[in-house]
Amino acid sequence: MPNPTAAMLVIGDEILSGRTQDTNTNHLAVKLTEVGINLREVRVVGDEASEIVAAVNALRTRFDYIFTSGGIGPTHDDITADCIAEAFDVGISVREDARAILATNYKNPDVDLNEARLRMARIPDGADLIDNPISKAPGFRMENVHVMAGVPTVFHAMVESVLPTLTGGEPLLSITVRIEAPEGEIAARLSQMAKETPSLSFGSYPFIQNGLFGSNIVVRGTNAGHLKTAREELEDLAKSLKA
Amino acid sequence: MPNPTAAMLVIGDEILSGRTQDTNTNHLAVKLTEVGINLREVRVVGDEASEIVAAVNALRTRFDYIFTSGGIGPTHDDITADCIAEAFDVGISVREDARAILATNYKNPDVDLNEARLRMARIPDGADLIDNPISKAPGFRMENVHVMAGVPTVFHAMVESVLPTLTGGEPLLSITVRIEAPEGEIAARLSQMAKETPSLSFGSYPFIQNGLFGSNIVVRGTNAGHLKTAREELEDLAKSLKA
Repeated sequence: MPNPTAAMLVIGDEILSGRTQDTNTNHLAVKLTEVGINLREVRVVGDEASEIVAAVNALRTRFDYIFTSGGIGPTHDDITADCIAEAFDVGISVREDARAILATNYKNPDVDLNEARLRMARIPDGADLIDNPISKAPGFRMENVHVMAGVPTVFHAMVESVLPTLTGGEPLLSITVRIEAPEGEIAARLSQMAKETPSLSFGSYPFIQNGLFGSNIVVRGTNAGHLKTAREELEDLAKSLKA
Repeated sequence: MPNPTAAMLVIGDEILSGRTQDTNTNHLAVKLTEVGINLREVRVVGDEASEIVAAVNALRTRFDYIFTSGGIGPTHDDITADCIAEAFDVGISVREDARAILATNYKNPDVDLNEARLRMARIPDGADLIDNPISKAPGFRMENVHVMAGVPTVFHAMVESVLPTLTGGEPLLSITVRIEAPEGEIAARLSQMAKETPSLSFGSYPFIQNGLFGSNIVVRGTNAGHLKTAREELEDLAKSLKA
């Protein structure tokens, strides 16, 4: 059985304007790879309802798991929860369990849990809450869509809350061999290896370091024996080019 | 006239597996914002022809400018140029001008310009070359799609080659005011300001720093006077919350 697939949707004008470097995608990618779930697509859209709804609907039907990041805070530009409700065509309202969780964050909930903060307790009908041990305001899961915060520390904590609920696949193993020669010198041999061992995927990731052109060859697969053979062949190739 | 729009397509399994943190998007976003071009969507897909072609075709009809990063090297997993030809339904072959540029990179082009490297001279019919001062192998522009390298130093250089050819819009100005209070304390006032000044966009980007909850309020727009007023009001708000 092939591994489950996933997509990530990053929501926020600040990523598109260049103000903020998204790092949540990389964090999620590493975590999913560890448990054998294949991240297959990432999209970034701005704080624009029509674009968020369209992206959620395009992705949730094509992949097993969807993860979103951003837009679930208390301010007027936090519209992700409403967009999810719209995408699934369900209602949304302040939910008592979410409100109770939020209330634990404040000394005086009657005063402090103002209208803006109550926005964070608005949950689409039928969703399950995702625990937020950092700042309390929960994320939520609506069918296969996991809606999480944009602030990296909170996103990371929510990913930890979600991971045990996912069904993983065969963990993808990988080896990396650094070859200090331009890609063009090794491309033919690499292509041949890829053809000979269809159980493995061969990626070549070129670098330029202090004027030296080289490439990291990353081989991925679930068969440890095949990977070991590939590593030996690549190390021989690396040596032969250095000599 | 509204500013021109843009989308970025990042191509590469290494981003989706978490091995590599994409930074090209952020670099492009900053550069486009400076010249008044609005980056509106980003997608990341793997080294899979059908997904690259579908993404290129989905984006190139919706936005003024498309930029891609990755998959134009000499190895078997570098399939971006072929995918662009397929997306535009045009032919692709080794082009003499591209081959001549590549040849300048080698002491002995007759030997060194092997079959793998010649892949980098395969250019879709009708495309213009994009200069690569770092490692010579050119990118190319096919109508509104700019195809560039994934290696950051080369990507940056290609962006510099491309920028003068783009028609920019009104540069977006922005101010940032740091407020050391939780978002929930300022959300109502912020929402009011956003309603009062529709010429500006108000974003709230929360942070958690040493246990302190706060938010950077970023206001964007093209009217310097409106921005100045917004800054004064936000600074007053920040002071009132500290007192």
